[in-house]
Amino acid sequence: MTLHTYGFDLATTVTPRPDEPSVFDAELHDNWRIGMGINGGLLLALAGRALCAELGDGVDGHLDPFSISGYYLSPTSPGRATLRTETLRRGRTVSTGSVSLTQAGDDGEPVERVRVLATYGDLDGHTDHIRTSATPPDLPAPADCVSTDLAPPEFLKQAPFLGSVELRLDPGTIGWVSGTPSGRGMARGWFRLPDGREPDPLMLLLAVDVLPPVNFDLGVPSWAPTLELTVHVRAKPAPGWLRIVHSTRNFAGGYLEEDAEAWDSAGRLVAQSRQLARVRLPQ
Amino acid sequence: MTLHTYGFDLATTVTPRPDEPSVFDAELHDNWRIGMGINGGLLLALAGRALCAELGDGVDGHLDPFSISGYYLSPTSPGRATLRTETLRRGRTVSTGSVSLTQAGDDGEPVERVRVLATYGDLDGHTDHIRTSATPPDLPAPADCVSTDLAPPEFLKQAPFLGSVELRLDPGTIGWVSGTPSGRGMARGWFRLPDGREPDPLMLLLAVDVLPPVNFDLGVPSWAPTLELTVHVRAKPAPGWLRIVHSTRNFAGGYLEEDAEAWDSAGRLVAQSRQLARVRLPQ
Repeated sequence: MTLHTYGFDLATTVTPRPDEPSVFDAELHDNWRIGMGINGGLLLALAGRALCAELGDGVDGHLDPFSISGYYLSPTSPGRATLRTETLRRGRTVSTGSVSLTQAGDDGEPVERVRVLATYGDLDGHTDHIRTSATPPDLPAPADCVSTDLAPPEFLKQAPFLGSVELRLDPGTIGWVSGTPSGRGMARGWFRLPDGREPDPLMLLLAVDVLPPVNFDLGVPSWAPTLELTVHVRAKPAPGWLRIVHSTRNFAGGYLEEDAEAWDSAGRLVAQSRQLARVRLPQ
Repeated sequence: MTLHTYGFDLATTVTPRPDEPSVFDAELHDNWRIGMGINGGLLLALAGRALCAELGDGVDGHLDPFSISGYYLSPTSPGRATLRTETLRRGRTVSTGSVSLTQAGDDGEPVERVRVLATYGDLDGHTDHIRTSATPPDLPAPADCVSTDLAPPEFLKQAPFLGSVELRLDPGTIGWVSGTPSGRGMARGWFRLPDGREPDPLMLLLAVDVLPPVNFDLGVPSWAPTLELTVHVRAKPAPGWLRIVHSTRNFAGGYLEEDAEAWDSAGRLVAQSRQLARVRLPQ
């Protein structure tokens, strides 16, 4: 049993500096590390929360990320981080802003870790019109999926982030665990936060980056550092488990695109994302 | 027969200001307008060329966009534009920069039109490894497709951009022309530049945004202004026609995502993109 001492809301807390407008302090915790750095979706959610503060104030505040893109510049490490936000345009329907996340380097000077652009609005203002042709993934029930709590200790040590989330992986997409990857380049599973904290638009920015990288299912068990991750949040999610699907169509030249979809418990496609990741090939 | 007096290279020319580093002047021409503004892919290519100048100098110059994201803030109009670039990180394998494109507003003050983030590298440095599962679209030959030169004059007046490109649309995806859209949310066609200028990574940034919006094929014939467009350039394209496919899986709440793929004449998937667009629904 895992202790969840540093949940999502705490991990994405941004504290405004009283004397410096649009500057926020935050703390990155090892509990959200995967491989060499903090999970990229968690960083996007952290930047997203700073933009909520930047773009969300006033009566016409825009609190929901419609589209958000993170460009990852250098690996983050646990410890203090600074976020600087900027409003690029404040509009009637949507507003756009940017965030720069920095940490102090070895010499104490700020080193930029992630630069983010995002357009925010009010998801409640969307029309009721739905003509989605995508269909939710056909997953075995959570009880019939594989909990990441069962991962070997040496794996969890590399990915302590897995202790901060609740994941149930579709057995059909984790053949790589026993040396028999499916070769389709797919990952599927159920996701929720272990402390009962329900999904919302910011949490979806994390949700699209929680499954194992799709290259595992292609028989290439390397970490896949993200160069760029863009998420479209398309609706406020209903409470309960999310179903997440990752797939790739183009693994070439040492890079792959990874598409993710997040489906809520009401069967609605609430977020879509795509990232470009570098995959170190076996020699 | 169309006169192509303002081709792609001229339309994406950026002139560095001798006394202001990282500031470039450019000219937006009505020949590249579609609906209310200049084509979003052309704007991305223009910003991309400014970043070539910013990130491409030196022996380890990074000249090729691996991933580039444009956030569209306000409609462009034909006339002068200014681009300001910034290097965020210069690395060994990749470098990341940003661009802000502005035009003078009614009061002469600069108004930001597009903000761009991008990571550049050297596509020739990619490995030869290819495990792409995507397959090229099965299109009728260009001679059996429909040239946009045949569009009605009132349509071309709304989209003079069509005179600057050479497009052959798959008859199976333009039923909307005669009031019988397929309902699949798809567009497919051949694309090249009319002056014989061959494709390269920058030209691919345009290529992913040249087909009619997929909502036409869903029976919703409205312009679909882009909020955000991200392109991954995955390989240098071979000379000749490109095959372009657009599709959507999620048209909901007045917004849709539009995925595009560009395939070169050698059958390689050279670029992938996704955009979030707003679609005005019929009343």
